[in-house]
Amino acid sequence: MDPWQDAMDHAVAVARRAGTLVRDAVQKDMKVMLKSSSVDLVTQTDQKVENLIIQSVTEKFPTHCFIGEESVAAGEACLLTDQPTWIVDPVDGTTNFVHGYPFVAVSIGFTVNKQLEFGVVYSCLEDKMYTGRKGRGSFCNGLSLQVSSQKDITQSMVATEFGSNRDPEVVDKIFCSMRRILCLPVHGMRGAGSAALNMCHVAAGSVEVYYETGIHCWDVAAAGVIVTEAGGLLMDVDGGPFDLMSRRVVAVNCQIIGDRVVKQIECFSPQRDDEGPQHKT
Amino acid sequence: MDPWQDAMDHAVAVARRAGTLVRDAVQKDMKVMLKSSSVDLVTQTDQKVENLIIQSVTEKFPTHCFIGEESVAAGEACLLTDQPTWIVDPVDGTTNFVHGYPFVAVSIGFTVNKQLEFGVVYSCLEDKMYTGRKGRGSFCNGLSLQVSSQKDITQSMVATEFGSNRDPEVVDKIFCSMRRILCLPVHGMRGAGSAALNMCHVAAGSVEVYYETGIHCWDVAAAGVIVTEAGGLLMDVDGGPFDLMSRRVVAVNCQIIGDRVVKQIECFSPQRDDEGPQHKT
Repeated sequence: MDPWQDAMDHAVAVARRAGTLVRDAVQKDMKVMLKSSSVDLVTQTDQKVENLIIQSVTEKFPTHCFIGEESVAAGEACLLTDQPTWIVDPVDGTTNFVHGYPFVAVSIGFTVNKQLEFGVVYSCLEDKMYTGRKGRGSFCNGLSLQVSSQKDITQSMVATEFGSNRDPEVVDKIFCSMRRILCLPVHGMRGAGSAALNMCHVAAGSVEVYYETGIHCWDVAAAGVIVTEAGGLLMDVDGGPFDLMSRRVVAVNCQIIGDRVVKQIECFSPQRDDEGPQHKT
Repeated sequence: MDPWQDAMDHAVAVARRAGTLVRDAVQKDMKVMLKSSSVDLVTQTDQKVENLIIQSVTEKFPTHCFIGEESVAAGEACLLTDQPTWIVDPVDGTTNFVHGYPFVAVSIGFTVNKQLEFGVVYSCLEDKMYTGRKGRGSFCNGLSLQVSSQKDITQSMVATEFGSNRDPEVVDKIFCSMRRILCLPVHGMRGAGSAALNMCHVAAGSVEVYYETGIHCWDVAAAGVIVTEAGGLLMDVDGGPFDLMSRRVVAVNCQIIGDRVVKQIECFSPQRDDEGPQHKT
Protein backbone atom coordinates (compact mmCIF):
# COMPACT_ATOMS: atom_id res chain seq x y z
CA MET A 1 0.00 0.00 0.00
CA ASP A 2 1.38 3.36 -1.10
CA PRO A 3 1.04 5.81 1.79
CA TRP A 4 1.02 8.88 -0.45
CA GLN A 5 -1.30 7.74 -3.22
CA ASP A 6 -4.20 9.71 -1.75
CA ALA A 7 -2.11 12.84 -1.67
CA MET A 8 -0.97 12.33 -5.23
CA ASP A 9 -4.51 11.75 -6.51
CA HIS A 10 -5.50 14.94 -4.75
CA ALA A 11 -2.58 16.81 -6.32
CA VAL A 12 -3.66 15.74 -9.82
CA ALA A 13 -7.25 16.81 -9.21
CA VAL A 14 -6.33 20.18 -7.75
CA ALA A 15 -3.72 20.84 -10.47
CA ARG A 16 -6.42 20.36 -13.08
CA ARG A 17 -8.79 22.74 -11.29
CA ALA A 18 -5.99 25.26 -10.84
CA GLY A 19 -4.98 24.90 -14.49
CA THR A 20 -8.50 25.70 -15.59
CA LEU A 21 -8.33 28.97 -13.64
CA VAL A 22 -4.97 29.79 -15.21
CA ARG A 23 -6.17 28.93 -18.72
CA ASP A 24 -9.28 31.08 -18.32
CA ALA A 25 -7.12 33.95 -17.07
CA VAL A 26 -4.84 33.72 -20.13
CA GLN A 27 -7.56 33.16 -22.71
CA LYS A 28 -10.36 35.36 -21.38
CA ASP A 29 -9.15 37.96 -18.89
CA MET A 30 -5.85 38.75 -20.65
CA LYS A 31 -7.64 39.54 -23.91
CA VAL A 32 -9.70 42.29 -22.32
CA MET A 33 -6.80 43.87 -20.40
CA LEU A 34 -4.30 46.46 -21.43
CA LYS A 35 -0.85 44.92 -21.47
CA SER A 36 0.19 47.51 -18.88
CA SER A 37 -2.02 45.84 -16.28
CA SER A 38 -1.06 42.29 -17.22
CA VAL A 39 1.46 42.07 -14.38
CA ASP A 40 -1.39 42.63 -11.93
CA LEU A 41 -3.35 39.82 -13.54
CA VAL A 42 -0.39 37.48 -13.11
CA THR A 43 -0.09 38.40 -9.45
CA GLN A 44 -3.82 38.02 -8.90
CA THR A 45 -3.90 34.68 -10.69
CA ASP A 46 -0.78 33.47 -8.86
CA GLN A 47 -2.33 34.30 -5.50
CA LYS A 48 -5.78 32.96 -6.37
CA VAL A 49 -4.39 29.67 -7.64
CA GLU A 50 -1.96 29.22 -4.74
CA ASN A 51 -4.77 29.87 -2.26
CA LEU A 52 -7.00 27.38 -4.05
CA ILE A 53 -4.31 24.71 -3.80
CA ILE A 54 -3.41 25.46 -0.15
CA GLN A 55 -7.03 25.54 0.99
CA SER A 56 -7.95 22.36 -0.82
CA VAL A 57 -4.90 20.48 0.50
CA THR A 58 -5.22 21.82 4.05
CA GLU A 59 -8.80 20.61 4.23
CA LYS A 60 -7.75 17.09 3.32
CA PHE A 61 -4.29 16.96 4.93
CA PRO A 62 -4.40 19.45 7.83
CA THR A 63 -0.95 18.53 9.22
CA HIS A 64 1.00 18.97 6.00
CA CYS A 65 3.39 21.88 5.34
CA PHE A 66 3.63 24.21 2.36
CA ILE A 67 6.24 26.06 0.41
CA GLY A 68 4.59 28.23 -2.23
CA GLU A 69 5.95 30.97 -4.45
CA GLU A 70 3.33 33.48 -3.33
CA SER A 71 3.51 32.54 0.36
CA VAL A 72 7.28 32.99 0.33
CA ALA A 73 6.91 36.29 -1.54
CA ALA A 74 4.51 37.33 1.24
CA GLY A 75 7.19 36.64 3.84
CA GLU A 76 6.73 32.99 4.86
CA ALA A 77 9.80 30.87 5.45
CA CYS A 78 11.17 28.69 2.68
CA LEU A 79 12.62 25.87 4.77
CA LEU A 80 12.37 22.23 3.92
CA THR A 81 11.71 20.00 6.93
CA ASP A 82 11.10 16.27 7.35
CA GLN A 83 7.34 16.89 7.45
CA PRO A 84 5.18 16.02 4.44
CA THR A 85 5.55 19.22 2.41
CA TRP A 86 3.77 20.49 -0.66
CA ILE A 87 5.97 22.69 -2.87
CA VAL A 88 3.78 24.72 -5.17
CA ASP A 89 4.27 27.05 -8.11
CA PRO A 90 0.79 28.22 -9.07
CA VAL A 91 1.93 29.65 -12.43
CA ASP A 92 5.27 28.47 -13.82
CA GLY A 93 6.14 30.51 -16.91
CA THR A 94 4.74 33.88 -15.86
CA THR A 95 6.22 35.71 -18.86
CA ASN A 96 4.51 33.18 -21.12
CA PHE A 97 1.31 33.75 -19.16
CA VAL A 98 1.48 37.52 -19.78
CA HIS A 99 2.03 37.00 -23.50
CA GLY A 100 -0.17 33.96 -24.07
CA TYR A 101 2.84 31.86 -25.16
CA PRO A 102 1.72 28.23 -25.01
CA PHE A 103 3.92 26.94 -22.13
CA VAL A 104 2.30 27.74 -18.78
CA ALA A 105 2.16 25.17 -15.97
CA VAL A 106 0.81 24.51 -12.49
CA SER A 107 3.54 22.71 -10.54
CA ILE A 108 2.91 20.69 -7.36
CA GLY A 109 5.75 18.73 -5.77
CA PHE A 110 5.62 16.74 -2.55
CA THR A 111 8.45 15.80 -0.19
CA VAL A 112 8.69 13.61 2.92
CA ASN A 113 11.90 13.52 4.96
CA LYS A 114 13.19 16.09 2.45
CA GLN A 115 12.92 13.52 -0.36
CA LEU A 116 10.77 14.14 -3.44
CA GLU A 117 7.90 11.64 -3.33
CA PHE A 118 5.75 12.74 -6.27
CA GLY A 119 5.33 15.58 -8.72
CA VAL A 120 2.46 16.87 -10.82
CA VAL A 121 2.98 19.41 -13.62
CA TYR A 122 -0.10 20.46 -15.56
CA SER A 123 0.65 22.31 -18.81
CA CYS A 124 -2.68 24.04 -18.91
CA LEU A 125 -2.68 25.64 -22.38
CA GLU A 126 -1.58 22.36 -23.97
CA ASP A 127 -3.82 20.31 -21.64
CA LYS A 128 -0.96 17.94 -20.79
CA MET A 129 -0.89 16.38 -17.31
CA TYR A 130 2.62 15.20 -16.38
CA THR A 131 2.99 13.05 -13.25
CA GLY A 132 5.79 11.18 -11.53
CA ARG A 133 5.72 9.02 -8.39
CA LYS A 134 8.87 7.68 -6.73
CA GLY A 135 9.32 4.07 -7.81
CA ARG A 136 6.27 4.09 -10.08
CA GLY A 137 7.36 5.90 -13.23
CA SER A 138 6.32 9.07 -15.03
CA PHE A 139 3.39 9.71 -17.30
CA CYS A 140 1.92 12.35 -19.60
CA ASN A 141 -1.84 12.08 -20.05
CA GLY A 142 -1.53 8.46 -18.99
CA LEU A 143 1.26 7.52 -21.42
CA SER A 144 4.52 6.33 -19.87
CA LEU A 145 7.48 8.71 -20.27
CA GLN A 146 11.05 7.71 -21.03
CA VAL A 147 14.07 9.98 -21.43
CA SER A 148 15.97 9.96 -24.71
CA SER A 149 18.47 7.11 -25.17
CA GLN A 150 20.92 9.45 -26.89
CA LYS A 151 24.48 9.33 -25.50
CA ASP A 152 26.12 11.71 -27.98
CA ILE A 153 25.87 15.38 -27.05
CA THR A 154 26.39 16.40 -30.68
CA GLN A 155 23.13 14.65 -31.60
CA SER A 156 21.26 16.28 -28.73
CA MET A 157 18.82 19.08 -28.08
CA VAL A 158 19.55 21.33 -25.09
CA ALA A 159 17.04 23.45 -23.19
CA THR A 160 17.91 26.50 -21.15
CA GLU A 161 16.69 30.06 -20.56
CA PHE A 162 18.11 33.57 -20.72
CA GLY A 163 16.44 34.14 -17.35
CA SER A 164 15.14 37.37 -15.89
CA ASN A 165 18.41 38.71 -14.42
CA ARG A 166 19.93 41.48 -16.60
CA ASP A 167 23.03 42.05 -14.43
CA PRO A 168 25.82 42.21 -17.07
CA GLU A 169 28.04 39.72 -15.21
CA VAL A 170 25.24 37.19 -15.03
CA VAL A 171 24.28 37.78 -18.66
CA ASP A 172 27.96 37.28 -19.64
CA LYS A 173 28.01 33.89 -17.97
CA ILE A 174 24.67 32.82 -19.44
CA PHE A 175 25.74 33.73 -22.98
CA CYS A 176 29.20 32.23 -22.56
CA SER A 177 27.73 28.88 -21.46
CA MET A 178 25.14 28.90 -24.23
CA ARG A 179 27.69 29.60 -26.90
CA ARG A 180 30.06 26.88 -25.74
CA ILE A 181 27.24 24.35 -25.69
CA LEU A 182 25.82 25.41 -29.06
CA CYS A 183 29.26 25.00 -30.64
CA LEU A 184 30.04 21.55 -29.19
CA PRO A 185 28.00 21.41 -31.50
CA VAL A 186 24.49 20.33 -30.54
CA HIS A 187 21.43 19.89 -32.78
CA GLY A 188 19.73 22.90 -31.29
CA MET A 189 18.82 24.87 -28.20
CA ARG A 190 15.30 25.60 -26.98
CA GLY A 191 13.72 27.37 -24.04
CA ALA A 192 10.07 26.83 -23.26
CA GLY A 193 10.03 29.72 -20.79
CA SER A 194 8.93 27.35 -18.01
CA ALA A 195 11.46 25.43 -15.92
CA ALA A 196 8.91 22.75 -15.08
CA LEU A 197 8.05 22.19 -18.74
CA ASN A 198 11.69 22.22 -19.86
CA MET A 199 12.18 19.38 -17.37
CA CYS A 200 9.07 17.57 -18.60
CA HIS A 201 10.56 17.80 -22.11
CA VAL A 202 13.65 16.00 -20.77
CA ALA A 203 11.38 13.35 -19.25
CA ALA A 204 9.48 12.99 -22.54
CA GLY A 205 12.74 12.64 -24.49
CA SER A 206 12.27 15.67 -26.74
CA VAL A 207 15.33 17.38 -25.25
CA GLU A 208 18.29 15.54 -23.77
CA VAL A 209 19.25 18.12 -21.17
CA TYR A 210 17.99 21.25 -19.44
CA TYR A 211 20.13 23.47 -17.21
CA GLU A 212 19.49 26.77 -15.49
CA THR A 213 20.67 28.87 -12.58
CA GLY A 214 18.25 31.18 -10.81
CA ILE A 215 15.22 28.91 -10.67
CA HIS A 216 13.47 28.29 -7.33
CA CYS A 217 12.58 25.07 -5.52
CA TRP A 218 8.91 25.44 -6.54
CA ASP A 219 9.90 25.57 -10.23
CA VAL A 220 11.71 22.23 -10.16
CA ALA A 221 10.43 20.09 -7.25
CA ALA A 222 7.53 18.47 -9.07
CA ALA A 223 9.29 18.08 -12.41
CA GLY A 224 12.35 16.66 -10.61
CA VAL A 225 10.49 13.45 -9.79
CA ILE A 226 9.04 13.32 -13.29
CA VAL A 227 12.58 13.42 -14.74
CA THR A 228 14.10 10.80 -12.43
CA GLU A 229 11.13 8.45 -12.80
CA ALA A 230 11.45 8.72 -16.60
CA GLY A 231 15.02 7.43 -16.23
CA GLY A 232 16.80 10.78 -16.07
CA LEU A 233 19.18 12.37 -13.56
CA LEU A 234 19.30 15.60 -11.60
CA MET A 235 22.65 17.30 -11.00
CA ASP A 236 24.05 20.61 -9.89
CA VAL A 237 25.41 22.88 -12.66
CA ASP A 238 28.91 22.21 -11.27
CA GLY A 239 28.41 18.46 -11.72
CA GLY A 240 27.84 17.80 -8.00
CA PRO A 241 24.67 16.45 -6.41
CA PHE A 242 21.38 18.26 -7.02
CA ASP A 243 20.26 20.50 -4.14
CA LEU A 244 16.61 21.55 -4.25
CA MET A 245 17.31 24.83 -2.44
CA SER A 246 20.44 25.87 -4.38
CA ARG A 247 18.54 27.50 -7.29
CA ARG A 248 20.67 25.52 -9.75
CA VAL A 249 19.59 22.51 -11.77
CA VAL A 250 20.67 20.17 -14.54
CA ALA A 251 18.07 17.63 -15.65
CA VAL A 252 19.52 15.17 -18.12
CA ASN A 253 18.82 11.85 -19.80
CA CYS A 254 22.20 10.28 -18.86
CA GLN A 255 25.42 10.86 -16.95
CA ILE A 256 27.57 11.07 -20.09
CA ILE A 257 25.67 14.02 -21.53
CA GLY A 258 25.33 15.61 -18.09
CA ASP A 259 29.10 15.46 -17.51
CA ARG A 260 29.76 16.93 -20.94
CA VAL A 261 27.33 19.81 -20.48
CA VAL A 262 28.39 20.87 -16.98
CA LYS A 263 31.98 21.30 -18.22
CA GLN A 264 30.70 24.10 -20.47
CA ILE A 265 28.68 25.94 -17.82
CA GLU A 266 29.98 29.13 -16.19
CA CYS A 267 28.64 28.72 -12.66
CA PHE A 268 27.24 31.40 -10.41
CA SER A 269 25.31 31.22 -7.15
CA PRO A 270 22.19 33.27 -6.48
CA GLN A 271 21.00 33.58 -2.86
CA ARG A 272 19.68 30.17 -1.80
CA ASP A 273 15.95 29.63 -1.38
CA ASP A 274 16.44 28.73 2.29
CA GLU A 275 18.51 31.83 3.10
CA GLY A 276 16.72 35.06 3.84
CA PRO A 277 13.78 36.77 2.19
CA GLN A 278 13.07 36.11 -1.46
CA HIS A 279 11.76 38.29 -4.21
CA LYS A 280 9.47 36.88 -6.80
CA THR A 281 10.95 36.22 -10.22
CA MET B 1 -15.63 36.55 -56.27
CA ASP B 2 -12.22 35.56 -54.95
CA PRO B 3 -10.24 33.97 -57.80
CA TRP B 4 -7.97 32.02 -55.45
CA GLN B 5 -10.48 30.74 -52.89
CA ASP B 6 -10.50 27.30 -54.51
CA ALA B 7 -6.74 27.11 -54.31
CA MET B 8 -6.75 28.18 -50.69
CA ASP B 9 -9.42 25.64 -49.71
CA HIS B 10 -7.31 23.00 -51.42
CA ALA B 11 -4.20 24.16 -49.55
CA VAL B 12 -5.96 23.81 -46.19
CA ALA B 13 -7.20 20.32 -47.04
CA VAL B 14 -3.84 19.09 -48.28
CA ALA B 15 -1.97 20.69 -45.35
CA ARG B 16 -4.17 18.72 -42.98
CA ARG B 17 -3.53 15.45 -44.85
CA ALA B 18 0.19 16.21 -44.99
CA GLY B 19 0.23 17.10 -41.30
CA THR B 20 -1.32 13.77 -40.42
CA LEU B 21 1.55 12.01 -42.21
CA VAL B 22 4.09 14.16 -40.37
CA ARG B 23 2.41 13.59 -37.00
CA ASP B 24 2.32 9.83 -37.54
CA ALA B 25 5.99 9.87 -38.51
CA VAL B 26 6.93 11.73 -35.30
CA GLN B 27 4.67 9.80 -32.96
CA LYS B 28 4.86 6.28 -34.40
CA ASP B 29 7.86 5.78 -36.68
CA MET B 30 10.30 7.91 -34.65
CA LYS B 31 9.63 5.88 -31.52
CA VAL B 32 10.75 2.63 -33.13
CA MET B 33 13.88 4.10 -34.76
CA LEU B 34 17.36 4.53 -33.44
CA LYS B 35 18.17 8.22 -33.23
CA SER B 36 21.06 7.59 -35.63
CA SER B 37 18.61 6.89 -38.44
CA SER B 38 16.25 9.72 -37.57
CA VAL B 39 17.78 11.99 -40.21
CA ASP B 40 16.73 9.46 -42.84
CA LEU B 41 13.20 9.50 -41.50
CA VAL B 42 13.10 13.29 -41.81
CA THR B 43 14.32 13.12 -45.40
CA GLN B 44 11.83 10.38 -46.24
CA THR B 45 8.98 12.25 -44.61
CA ASP B 46 10.00 15.54 -46.24
CA GLN B 47 10.00 13.93 -49.66
CA LYS B 48 6.82 11.93 -49.12
CA VAL B 49 4.91 14.97 -47.88
CA GLU B 50 6.22 17.30 -50.59
CA ASN B 51 5.25 14.74 -53.26
CA LEU B 52 1.79 14.39 -51.74
CA ILE B 53 1.29 18.15 -51.90
CA ILE B 54 2.68 18.56 -55.42
CA GLN B 55 0.68 15.65 -56.84
CA SER B 56 -2.53 16.76 -55.24
CA VAL B 57 -2.13 20.37 -56.38
CA THR B 58 -0.99 19.45 -59.89
CA GLU B 59 -4.07 17.34 -60.39
CA LYS B 60 -6.33 20.24 -59.55
CA PHE B 61 -4.25 23.14 -60.88
CA PRO B 62 -2.10 21.68 -63.67
CA THR B 63 -0.67 25.02 -64.84
CA HIS B 64 0.60 26.23 -61.45
CA CYS B 65 4.29 26.36 -60.54
CA PHE B 66 6.08 25.05 -57.43
CA ILE B 67 8.96 25.96 -55.23
CA GLY B 68 9.50 23.23 -52.65
CA GLU B 69 12.34 22.60 -50.24
CA GLU B 70 12.88 19.06 -51.45
CA SER B 71 12.52 19.90 -55.15
CA VAL B 72 15.11 22.67 -54.81
CA ALA B 73 17.39 20.31 -52.86
CA ALA B 74 17.01 17.88 -55.78
CA GLY B 75 18.26 20.53 -58.19
CA GLU B 76 15.15 22.38 -59.36
CA ALA B 77 15.30 26.13 -59.81
CA CYS B 78 14.17 28.43 -57.04
CA LEU B 79 12.94 31.35 -59.11
CA LEU B 80 9.80 33.28 -58.42
CA THR B 81 7.86 34.22 -61.58
CA ASP B 82 4.54 35.97 -62.16
CA GLN B 83 2.82 32.59 -62.53
CA PRO B 84 0.61 31.27 -59.72
CA THR B 85 3.22 29.58 -57.54
CA TRP B 86 2.95 27.26 -54.55
CA ILE B 87 5.84 27.64 -52.12
CA VAL B 88 6.00 24.57 -49.92
CA ASP B 89 7.91 23.47 -46.85
CA PRO B 90 6.71 19.94 -46.11
CA VAL B 91 8.29 19.86 -42.61
CA ASP B 92 9.22 23.20 -41.04
CA GLY B 93 11.13 22.57 -37.81
CA THR B 94 13.08 19.48 -38.85
CA THR B 95 15.20 19.44 -35.67
CA ASN B 96 12.00 19.50 -33.63
CA PHE B 97 10.69 16.66 -35.81
CA VAL B 98 13.75 14.53 -35.05
CA HIS B 99 13.39 15.15 -31.32
CA GLY B 100 9.61 15.18 -31.04
CA TYR B 101 9.64 18.79 -29.79
CA PRO B 102 6.08 20.06 -30.17
CA PHE B 103 6.56 22.72 -32.92
CA VAL B 104 6.49 21.06 -36.36
CA ALA B 105 4.57 22.60 -39.27
CA VAL B 106 3.50 22.04 -42.85
CA SER B 107 3.82 25.37 -44.66
CA ILE B 108 2.08 26.20 -47.96
CA GLY B 109 2.34 29.71 -49.40
CA PHE B 110 0.90 30.93 -52.70
CA THR B 111 2.02 33.84 -54.88
CA VAL B 112 0.64 35.45 -58.03
CA ASN B 113 2.63 38.17 -59.82
CA LYS B 114 5.27 37.60 -57.13
CA GLN B 115 2.84 38.80 -54.45
CA LEU B 116 1.81 36.56 -51.54
CA GLU B 117 -1.89 35.78 -51.96
CA PHE B 118 -2.51 33.28 -49.15
CA GLY B 119 -0.67 31.15 -46.62
CA VAL B 120 -1.50 28.00 -44.70
CA VAL B 121 0.63 26.79 -41.77
CA TYR B 122 -0.51 23.61 -40.02
CA SER B 123 1.16 22.99 -36.66
CA CYS B 124 0.58 19.30 -36.75
CA LEU B 125 1.58 18.21 -33.23
CA GLU B 126 -0.53 20.98 -31.69
CA ASP B 127 -3.31 20.49 -34.28
CA LYS B 128 -3.44 24.24 -34.98
CA MET B 129 -4.37 25.37 -38.50
CA TYR B 130 -3.17 28.91 -39.21
CA THR B 131 -4.44 30.60 -42.39
CA GLY B 132 -4.12 34.04 -43.96
CA ARG B 133 -5.66 35.38 -47.16
CA LYS B 134 -4.74 38.77 -48.64
CA GLY B 135 -7.44 41.27 -47.66
CA ARG B 136 -9.42 38.73 -45.64
CA GLY B 137 -7.57 38.38 -42.33
CA SER B 138 -5.77 35.58 -40.51
CA PHE B 139 -7.17 32.76 -38.44
CA CYS B 140 -6.12 29.92 -36.16
CA ASN B 141 -8.61 27.06 -36.03
CA GLY B 142 -11.24 29.51 -37.20
CA LEU B 143 -10.53 32.22 -34.59
CA SER B 144 -9.42 35.59 -35.92
CA LEU B 145 -5.79 36.53 -35.22
CA GLN B 146 -4.53 39.95 -34.23
CA VAL B 147 -0.95 41.00 -33.51
CA SER B 148 -0.08 42.41 -30.10
CA SER B 149 -0.93 46.09 -29.55
CA GLN B 150 2.29 46.59 -27.56
CA LYS B 151 4.40 49.57 -28.70
CA ASP B 152 7.08 49.37 -26.01
CA ILE B 153 9.95 47.02 -26.80
CA THR B 154 10.80 46.69 -23.10
CA GLN B 155 7.38 45.09 -22.52
CA SER B 156 7.80 42.72 -25.46
CA MET B 157 8.66 39.11 -26.17
CA VAL B 158 11.12 38.47 -29.01
CA ALA B 159 11.47 35.27 -31.02
CA THR B 160 14.59 34.23 -32.86
CA GLU B 161 16.76 31.15 -33.41
CA PHE B 162 20.39 30.18 -32.99
CA GLY B 163 20.11 28.63 -36.47
CA SER B 164 22.07 25.73 -37.89
CA ASN B 165 25.17 27.59 -39.05
CA ARG B 166 28.14 27.07 -36.66
CA ASP B 167 30.61 29.30 -38.54
CA PRO B 168 32.19 31.35 -35.71
CA GLU B 169 31.66 34.68 -37.48
CA VAL B 170 27.97 33.94 -37.98
CA VAL B 171 27.59 32.68 -34.40
CA ASP B 172 29.31 35.89 -33.17
CA LYS B 173 26.75 38.03 -34.97
CA ILE B 174 23.80 35.94 -33.80
CA PHE B 175 24.88 36.11 -30.14
CA CYS B 176 25.77 39.79 -30.34
CA SER B 177 22.31 40.66 -31.71
CA MET B 178 20.56 38.46 -29.14
CA ARG B 179 22.43 40.00 -26.26
CA ARG B 180 21.74 43.56 -27.34
CA ILE B 181 18.05 42.82 -27.71
CA LEU B 182 17.81 40.92 -24.41
CA CYS B 183 19.40 43.86 -22.59
CA LEU B 184 17.21 46.59 -24.11
CA PRO B 185 15.72 44.95 -21.97
CA VAL B 186 12.84 42.82 -23.24
CA HIS B 187 10.50 40.55 -21.26
CA GLY B 188 12.01 37.43 -22.76
CA MET B 189 13.28 35.65 -25.83
CA ARG B 190 11.88 32.45 -27.28
CA GLY B 191 12.59 30.24 -30.26
CA ALA B 192 10.03 27.67 -31.35
CA GLY B 193 12.51 25.99 -33.70
CA SER B 194 10.18 26.64 -36.64
CA ALA B 195 10.30 29.90 -38.59
CA ALA B 196 6.71 29.48 -39.74
CA LEU B 197 5.46 29.00 -36.18
CA ASN B 198 7.57 31.84 -34.79
CA MET B 199 5.78 34.04 -37.34
CA CYS B 200 2.39 32.58 -36.42
CA HIS B 201 3.19 33.50 -32.80
CA VAL B 202 3.69 37.10 -33.97
CA ALA B 203 0.32 36.92 -35.77
CA ALA B 204 -1.33 35.50 -32.65
CA GLY B 205 0.17 38.24 -30.46
CA SER B 206 2.14 35.95 -28.14
CA VAL B 207 5.44 37.45 -29.31
CA GLU B 208 5.83 40.98 -30.64
CA VAL B 209 8.67 40.30 -33.06
CA TYR B 210 10.56 37.49 -34.77
CA TYR B 211 13.77 37.96 -36.72
CA GLU B 212 16.17 35.54 -38.36
CA THR B 213 18.79 35.35 -41.09
CA GLY B 214 19.33 32.09 -42.94
CA ILE B 215 15.73 31.03 -43.40
CA HIS B 216 14.45 30.13 -46.88
CA CYS B 217 11.49 31.41 -48.88
CA TRP B 218 9.53 28.21 -48.13
CA ASP B 219 9.93 28.78 -44.39
CA VAL B 220 8.32 32.23 -44.45
CA ALA B 221 6.09 32.60 -47.53
CA ALA B 222 2.91 31.16 -45.99
CA ALA B 223 3.39 32.68 -42.54
CA GLY B 224 4.23 36.05 -44.15
CA VAL B 225 0.60 36.51 -45.26
CA ILE B 226 -0.62 35.30 -41.87
CA VAL B 227 1.45 38.01 -40.16
CA THR B 228 0.42 40.89 -42.44
CA GLU B 229 -3.25 39.90 -42.39
CA ALA B 230 -3.13 39.85 -38.58
CA GLY B 231 -2.02 43.48 -38.71
CA GLY B 232 1.74 42.91 -38.60
CA LEU B 233 4.60 43.97 -40.85
CA LEU B 234 7.42 42.22 -42.68
CA MET B 235 10.82 43.91 -42.95
CA ASP B 236 14.39 43.12 -43.82
CA VAL B 237 16.79 42.73 -40.88
CA ASP B 238 18.44 46.00 -42.03
CA GLY B 239 15.12 47.80 -41.76
CA GLY B 240 14.53 47.90 -45.53
CA PRO B 241 11.69 46.21 -47.41
CA PHE B 242 11.14 42.48 -47.00
CA ASP B 243 12.49 40.35 -49.85
CA LEU B 244 11.14 36.79 -49.98
CA MET B 245 14.33 35.47 -51.60
CA SER B 246 16.87 37.26 -49.39
CA ARG B 247 16.84 34.69 -46.57
CA ARG B 248 16.32 37.47 -44.03
CA VAL B 249 13.12 38.34 -42.23
CA VAL B 250 11.67 40.48 -39.48
CA ALA B 251 8.01 39.86 -38.67
CA VAL B 252 6.70 42.40 -36.19
CA ASN B 253 3.50 43.76 -34.71
CA CYS B 254 4.30 47.44 -35.44
CA GLN B 255 6.82 49.74 -37.07
CA ILE B 256 8.04 51.22 -33.77
CA ILE B 257 9.17 47.88 -32.37
CA GLY B 258 10.50 46.78 -35.76
CA ASP B 259 12.67 49.92 -36.06
CA ARG B 260 13.98 49.44 -32.52
CA VAL B 261 14.88 45.79 -33.06
CA VAL B 262 16.61 46.15 -36.43
CA LYS B 263 18.99 48.73 -34.90
CA GLN B 264 20.30 45.94 -32.64
CA ILE B 265 20.79 43.32 -35.36
CA GLU B 266 24.22 42.51 -36.76
CA CYS B 267 23.38 41.82 -40.40
CA PHE B 268 24.89 39.20 -42.66
CA SER B 269 23.84 37.87 -46.06
CA PRO B 270 23.68 34.18 -46.89
CA GLN B 271 23.49 33.18 -50.56
CA ARG B 272 20.06 34.20 -51.84
CA ASP B 273 17.45 31.55 -52.58
CA ASP B 274 17.30 32.64 -56.24
CA GLU B 275 21.08 32.48 -56.76
CA GLY B 276 22.64 29.12 -57.53
CA PRO B 277 22.15 25.69 -55.99
CA GLN B 278 20.94 25.39 -52.43
CA HIS B 279 21.73 22.97 -49.70
CA LYS B 280 19.02 21.86 -47.35
CA THR B 281 19.09 23.30 -43.83
